[in-house]
Amino acid sequence: MPNATSVGADAYALATELFPICRSLTGPGVRETLRILQRELPDLTLHEVPSGTRCFDWTVPPEWSIREAYIADEDGRRVVDFANHTLHVVGYSTPVDAVMGLDELRPHLHSLPELPDAIPYVTSYYKERWGFCLSHRQLQSLAPGQYRVRIDSTLAPGSLTYGELLIPGQRDDEIFLSTYVCHPSMGNNELSGPVVTTEIARWLGSLKDRRYSYRIVFIPETIGSLVYLSRNLADMKRRIVAGFNVTCVGDDRAYSYLPSRQTDTLADRAALHSLRHQAGAEGFVRYSFLDRGSDERQYCSPGVDLPVATIMRSKYGAYPEYHTSLDDLSLISPAGLSGGISAIAKAILAIETNGRYRATVLGEPQLGRRGLYPTLGTRDGNLVVRKLMGVLAYSDGKHDLLAIADLMGVPVWELSEVAQQLLAHELLADCDAEQRQRDVKA
Amino acid sequence: MPNATSVGADAYALATELFPICRSLTGPGVRETLRILQRELPDLTLHEVPSGTRCFDWTVPPEWSIREAYIADEDGRRVVDFANHTLHVVGYSTPVDAVMGLDELRPHLHSLPELPDAIPYVTSYYKERWGFCLSHRQLQSLAPGQYRVRIDSTLAPGSLTYGELLIPGQRDDEIFLSTYVCHPSMGNNELSGPVVTTEIARWLGSLKDRRYSYRIVFIPETIGSLVYLSRNLADMKRRIVAGFNVTCVGDDRAYSYLPSRQTDTLADRAALHSLRHQAGAEGFVRYSFLDRGSDERQYCSPGVDLPVATIMRSKYGAYPEYHTSLDDLSLISPAGLSGGISAIAKAILAIETNGRYRATVLGEPQLGRRGLYPTLGTRDGNLVVRKLMGVLAYSDGKHDLLAIADLMGVPVWELSEVAQQLLAHELLADCDAEQRQRDVKA
Amino acid sequence: MPNATSVGADAYALATELFPICRSLTGPGVRETLRILQRELPDLTLHEVPSGTRCFDWTVPPEWSIREAYIADEDGRRVVDFANHTLHVVGYSTPVDAVMGLDELRPHLHSLPELPDAIPYVTSYYKERWGFCLSHRQLQSLAPGQYRVRIDSTLAPGSLTYGELLIPGQRDDEIFLSTYVCHPSMGNNELSGPVVTTEIARWLGSLKDRRYSYRIVFIPETIGSLVYLSRNLADMKRRIVAGFNVTCVGDDRAYSYLPSRQTDTLADRAALHSLRHQAGAEGFVRYSFLDRGSDERQYCSPGVDLPVATIMRSKYGAYPEYHTSLDDLSLISPAGLSGGISAIAKAILAIETNGRYRATVLGEPQLGRRGLYPTLGTRDGNLVVRKLMGVLAYSDGKHDLLAIADLMGVPVWELSEVAQQLLAHELLADCDAEQRQRDVKA
Repeated sequence: MPNATSVGADAYALATELFPICRSLTGPGVRETLRILQRELPDLTLHEVPSGTRCFDWTVPPEWSIREAYIADEDGRRVVDFANHTLHVVGYSTPVDAVMGLDELRPHLHSLPELPDAIPYVTSYYKERWGFCLSHRQLQSLAPGQYRVRIDSTLAPGSLTYGELLIPGQRDDEIFLSTYVCHPSMGNNELSGPVVTTEIARWLGSLKDRRYSYRIVFIPETIGSLVYLSRNLADMKRRIVAGFNVTCVGDDRAYSYLPSRQTDTLADRAALHSLRHQAGAEGFVRYSFLDRGSDERQYCSPGVDLPVATIMRSKYGAYPEYHTSLDDLSLISPAGLSGGISAIAKAILAIETNGRYRATVLGEPQLGRRGLYPTLGTRDGNLVVRKLMGVLAYSDGKHDLLAIADLMGVPVWELSEVAQQLLAHELLADCDAEQRQRDVKA
Repeated sequence: MPNATSVGADAYALATELFPICRSLTGPGVRETLRILQRELPDLTLHEVPSGTRCFDWTVPPEWSIREAYIADEDGRRVVDFANHTLHVVGYSTPVDAVMGLDELRPHLHSLPELPDAIPYVTSYYKERWGFCLSHRQLQSLAPGQYRVRIDSTLAPGSLTYGELLIPGQRDDEIFLSTYVCHPSMGNNELSGPVVTTEIARWLGSLKDRRYSYRIVFIPETIGSLVYLSRNLADMKRRIVAGFNVTCVGDDRAYSYLPSRQTDTLADRAALHSLRHQAGAEGFVRYSFLDRGSDERQYCSPGVDLPVATIMRSKYGAYPEYHTSLDDLSLISPAGLSGGISAIAKAILAIETNGRYRATVLGEPQLGRRGLYPTLGTRDGNLVVRKLMGVLAYSDGKHDLLAIADLMGVPVWELSEVAQQLLAHELLADCDAEQRQRDVKA
Repeated sequence: MPNATSVGADAYALATELFPICRSLTGPGVRETLRILQRELPDLTLHEVPSGTRCFDWTVPPEWSIREAYIADEDGRRVVDFANHTLHVVGYSTPVDAVMGLDELRPHLHSLPELPDAIPYVTSYYKERWGFCLSHRQLQSLAPGQYRVRIDSTLAPGSLTYGELLIPGQRDDEIFLSTYVCHPSMGNNELSGPVVTTEIARWLGSLKDRRYSYRIVFIPETIGSLVYLSRNLADMKRRIVAGFNVTCVGDDRAYSYLPSRQTDTLADRAALHSLRHQAGAEGFVRYSFLDRGSDERQYCSPGVDLPVATIMRSKYGAYPEYHTSLDDLSLISPAGLSGGISAIAKAILAIETNGRYRATVLGEPQLGRRGLYPTLGTRDGNLVVRKLMGVLAYSDGKHDLLAIADLMGVPVWELSEVAQQLLAHELLADCDAEQRQRDVKA
């Protein structure tokens, strides 16, 4: 497992570094972010997909760059300034440079009366418009008069950038992780996703004897997953045994689970197993696929049907600071990020340590003569051997270890240790290995 | 949907007209009732099935006619008189004309000590006997002495009469409705059934573009359904996709559901869907098939196995006035009947608007450029597009709209509107239509 | 059913007779016990399996005999004496005859500080050691000094002894009962098992027209079932339709159910049906297969997979006196044993009276003309015919009577009487008999 004390702090430091950068679907902020991630994960490769490229029903939009944006009053005082917060400008704003009265400006201003101190996060990727976001208090303090309004942005043919990391394992079968690099300066949604994924990737790289290969993508939401799917779908459908969408994994208020559309894939089973042992059987919120709102919308769409589940701390849309400037670095914490890392690592571990075995002897084996069972029969239940007996009793070639672990209420990685002992004593045979041998022969 | 304000009043007026007629399994009262229904539904055809006709394990009994019946005291005063209430005579009573003492008469008298003001409803269709029904108070007031007992009835070869209405739709597949015309002067059980069915039939006739054809029968209970099944079973098994037994749909105290024997047919799914939206998820009583007591006994019998469920207001046997003179026109009401009509219409609508679709593009389609999705991304969940996204996400060719609607907790007819929009944009394909095309080719 | 008043008393008298005998895995105490059971069940055959015989992963151990064992103090006073209680010696103790100080003796002494008056039950079948068991109070009263320690026992090639009884029925299909003869002087666990099984066997022998054959074994735990399985597995897998492990069926504090590993075999269905009618739906403890600890460990092991469930009173390990001298004849009672007998008999009866039928007529048959249904139709539900109608409605060749009985909440043996009536009227056909005829022809 990742080192619980250091990974949270490392992830938080990385989030702090990435926070000021103005990310969007495309543009220099995404590239700068990915280059910093590349520093952390040297094998991360960056891909550029030209504007205009078709991906299923969509088209990669023009690339957006922004250099400066502000609203200045008649005294030249910048009352709203992009330099202060990247959220002040509506994402993908077209350029503007004009002087106008408050009445004319007003339709271009977005605020949240119910959260008067928060700057909202607003975007307009696929319809050309411009706008500013500001706190409702700021909005109300604007006096009638003339304002200089300037957005020095470009919307022009360019490319969409994403990062991809393949960590090979013993098998070609893959576990898939997907997270976002398109959100500007926000904490839980969404610097937590890329920094937690970075720590997970580093931990996976350090694991010896990984069974599975890992395919990890850092993408802009929606258009990024559509681009990636349209390029890799056949390969993904053949190889991916389970995937996790990594988002909103940084605060310390809740653990959450959102299922795949199929609701019972290996990813779902692993996510639930992880959360039961990370947070307790009743210690996490179980959402329905109807509550979806992230890239499982693409990964689980009909015909795509990938086994992708989502493990979160406080879910997007389910906390008051969501999609505002209040979702900042104070909302996330090293402990919150560490919990997110741990929950995802446990789900991965559940799959890595899973297996399907069959008992090689009829009846219970005589464990006593192998030193695996006490030789003195007393009235005490033997807690030590309960796991051993459980694995043996259910190793019928149908139950996998994860199913046995869920029956017994114990972590699958603990049963895996027991299964290794029994394999060493030739009391179990590995059904999956036998199947792979048959596949090779056929 | 049927006009909620007028159908209840129309149904109640029809019940009031039919109330005094003495109906039974067979005879002039049934024919008179069916002729009045024919006035309302001109396409209703009447069928006569001769006494002695075999239907499965049964035989159509002799036809019963009754002209007069009374008990008169020594002063010639008619203390019990069929002219006052059709329930005063045991149904299918053989003729009698005699003078006898109270002791001899007593075994022929039926009353309900627990409901001293009610005349019970008693029949003896398949064993020859005669009898009178009277309130317990009446019974107790009978003084010892001689009584003139007269029932001027006939039990003779004739025929059983039923009504049948076929309303054609775009498809040969049928929805089946069955109700009773054998109950004498009672309200909820059973003038509500035929008058509600009449309103439903009229509404169905007025619908343009009905997908399904409708087979509607007005029959005497048990022997009528057995007669009808024995003549039409192969046809019914091939065509009927769902059926509803229409009984006890006139009072205003409850909504009730009684499943088919299989419990999960399309009729059951539609009935539950209707009642959840008509009465609320917890607003209706769910009976078990073990509580059955109506013609689902025949329609769901082994080997017949039709998908027939029952939607009711207060279920037969579950209200104190059941099968007595207290189940009169005051027990039912325009509002009660209107609710019954609405619940059955919604179940029909659930089937009419159901469908099975598949998404035509991989990933989510770009709804924004089709004007189906807001172009400004904000923090608000988009309630408007939730149905659209739900239909798209689950349109995998396996879930039908009814299943998606039940998942989402919304009425299927609302999703159907959304599905039509998506079909128009070619974002969905109609799996059932594709299947029918394949069937035609094959 | 067994006579409730006499079987409990008979079983208790037999337990009293067997109590003083020193039973173990092997040896004279087992043989003496089996010979007494043979007196009760003359057809019981005894089998001897030589030490060293392989059975799956195990080997039959040497035979153990013990003649005398005690600890005497310096005054020659026997402070612990096997003659007082068979539990005083660790089962399978090797011989010893020595004088030693308390310090040297101490590691050979077993007591239970938490139950200071109880002698624990300790064994060491597969590792050679010797030891004494005594109450913690006794242990604490031992003064420092020299003790004469003597165990006059033999561990030598011999044989393992078990009893087997086959009670033939109309069919070769078998119901299997298994119980223990290896526990020394204890009541609930385990004189209750063999004495209850003896009463059940006697009752089965007295039944006329048994459908099933019965295979009943009296064996030492674990090694006995492994020996029996290794000799009979193919036969058992072909013939056994349901089995019950009979253990802990003698006290009066609880009813308990422990499922087979598959959890839904005929044995499980019959056990649950029995307990629901013996103890009420909520009147018994439902354990998980994870709580197993008896020979279902062998019978339900992967590859063996026999349909064996366990019906108990207070389960082994779940009551404080378990595996100590406090589990004596005062813990069990005639009433407790009678309840155990009744629960197992009802499970057997559920299988004996089960059947799978199909209705021979379409629609409901006309029961009235066969005298099976009242000819007078009134408002009363007809409780008398509810079972009849239930059997008819669900006799579709798929539901068996046990499933119908569980749906209706009535005992299957009551439905069986109804089914016999309907078979006599040719309104049902026996699907199992039809299947057997087809099997014979094929």
